[in-house]
Amino acid sequence: MNNQWQSYPFISTQLNSVNQCIQEKLKCSNQELQDALVTMATNGGKYLRPAILLTIGQVCGAKDDNDQLIKLAASIEILHMATLVHDDIVDDSPKRRGAVSIQSRFGKDIAVYAGDLLFTAFFDLLLEAIHGSKYLEVNAHAMRKILDGELGQMNQRFNTKQSLDDYLDDVNGKTAALFQLAAQEGAHFAGGDEDAVQHAAEFGQKLGIAFQMLDDILDYTGDDQLNKPVMEDLSTGVYSLPLLMALQADSPQSTTLESILAKGNQLDENDMNQIRQLVIESGAVEQSRELAGKFTQEALESLSALPDNKYNRFLTKMTKKLLKRTI
Amino acid sequence: MNNQWQSYPFISTQLNSVNQCIQEKLKCSNQELQDALVTMATNGGKYLRPAILLTIGQVCGAKDDNDQLIKLAASIEILHMATLVHDDIVDDSPKRRGAVSIQSRFGKDIAVYAGDLLFTAFFDLLLEAIHGSKYLEVNAHAMRKILDGELGQMNQRFNTKQSLDDYLDDVNGKTAALFQLAAQEGAHFAGGDEDAVQHAAEFGQKLGIAFQMLDDILDYTGDDQLNKPVMEDLSTGVYSLPLLMALQADSPQSTTLESILAKGNQLDENDMNQIRQLVIESGAVEQSRELAGKFTQEALESLSALPDNKYNRFLTKMTKKLLKRTI
Repeated sequence: MNNQWQSYPFISTQLNSVNQCIQEKLKCSNQELQDALVTMATNGGKYLRPAILLTIGQVCGAKDDNDQLIKLAASIEILHMATLVHDDIVDDSPKRRGAVSIQSRFGKDIAVYAGDLLFTAFFDLLLEAIHGSKYLEVNAHAMRKILDGELGQMNQRFNTKQSLDDYLDDVNGKTAALFQLAAQEGAHFAGGDEDAVQHAAEFGQKLGIAFQMLDDILDYTGDDQLNKPVMEDLSTGVYSLPLLMALQADSPQSTTLESILAKGNQLDENDMNQIRQLVIESGAVEQSRELAGKFTQEALESLSALPDNKYNRFLTKMTKKLLKRTI
Repeated sequence: MNNQWQSYPFISTQLNSVNQCIQEKLKCSNQELQDALVTMATNGGKYLRPAILLTIGQVCGAKDDNDQLIKLAASIEILHMATLVHDDIVDDSPKRRGAVSIQSRFGKDIAVYAGDLLFTAFFDLLLEAIHGSKYLEVNAHAMRKILDGELGQMNQRFNTKQSLDDYLDDVNGKTAALFQLAAQEGAHFAGGDEDAVQHAAEFGQKLGIAFQMLDDILDYTGDDQLNKPVMEDLSTGVYSLPLLMALQADSPQSTTLESILAKGNQLDENDMNQIRQLVIESGAVEQSRELAGKFTQEALESLSALPDNKYNRFLTKMTKKLLKRTI
């Protein structure tokens, strides 16, 4: 994990246990692949989803190092890793978490199976943690939502008329479903009542949406140029929030954007930088930030309906910080 | 499903229910993908694993159209489909079950997610069928064995010194695990006692191994030339049973084979046909058939330890027939 948690020992100690648990589950017949997956699980990952699960658990009264919550936190990170490994195949990503991606190191073939192995490890760990619970179904449902989100995003490729609702539907699946699951499981297995679980689920969902929006916004507020993954997204027709907002505005920029995007997958670097410039000029970045702020606000409201304690205050702080992140 | 079951109404009616159940579970947000998966589930598949599960169930006393067994049979076929969709990505296969493969029709990107969608549908259906049962763990374990088999096979690529034990280990995972699961679940959920479940599991496992060996043998007994998938296997270093047996024999052919295979992935068509000829001359095809016969015999012995009824006699006949199949 990266070290953003170091100043919070209550969570960093637990995240170390999560990492141990993940490493345990990644043992497989191919030592080289196992090492690469362990590296992926250990270096660079923010462990944001496990941290949410464990902290919401403590908001709702869980003790430190509750074995069941650690296992559930590990299961969610493993599911997240599975989707990352398969996404990297789809996106041809050379890098993941600062290291060479599984697909680029071992080829797409092994990456397909590596992702499948992670799905299996997820399933296995989940059974270890909560066999018999109705939360097995909740997990299956979350997996399904993630995939529907990914497929939905694919359906929308190159669609400049994509509505904000379409975008939200897909983000709700591909990103928010796991945040929601983390928060919901944390509350439920810490003994939270139905109301608490409902508020936790809403917190996770809204935070997940805001998190994805921020990701989209950062594409346009970084260096002078778009970074490589964003350029790849553009040329494969995946349009992110600021671009969609710029397209929908009734502005001079929207017409020019339409005409550049009409080139489909034939965009060159010059086109992409022009797109970046037009999106910024249109004011869509600020608009996107406003929308992300609205979801963050909703997340904070759900949080305030949960018990007020130091863990809740920590999550409140973290949620506000996420909106201000620059990387 | 293909029509090999048509003369056995007791099973073909149930397999229609299995197909209905699978179609139900394949509903997704991408209509085109859904249609392709339904086609894959409906045309050409032999439904061998569901047939084994349902018939073993009846051997052990299950009634026709037992809803739980139908769902379990559907879950196994869906898991099988998931592995096929991902295998086709790895193998670059243009065809699957006589139709265009998912990866070749939609691209590898969608095929990655399509396989994941099938894994999710499998998980979901399994929970519907047997929530709370320890057989959830049995399923997770089978999934893991399949993947370990696939990864093991990858580890052995281009290894001309691969032992028969290595081969058996991989086949035990990549093929036999699902046959074993089918037979085991059929017996258990039909109310079979521990002994019956054990015999059923052994039957499935041995049958699965024999089935894969036959598949390997058919590569060398078909037309004059190796077919395209076999050529692709050879050039990606996947060596099947007859070739491994020919390599291990202390014969003049083994030395020549070694020297041709030393070309690695640079084999041309001429090399491949020479390999085919050498393998046949070495007597390895007959040796392989003998070994497959041994496993078939063991499968039949396990079957004979189960209740003797018309369903058992049907499975006995089917098992013997599999050894004689020519396609």
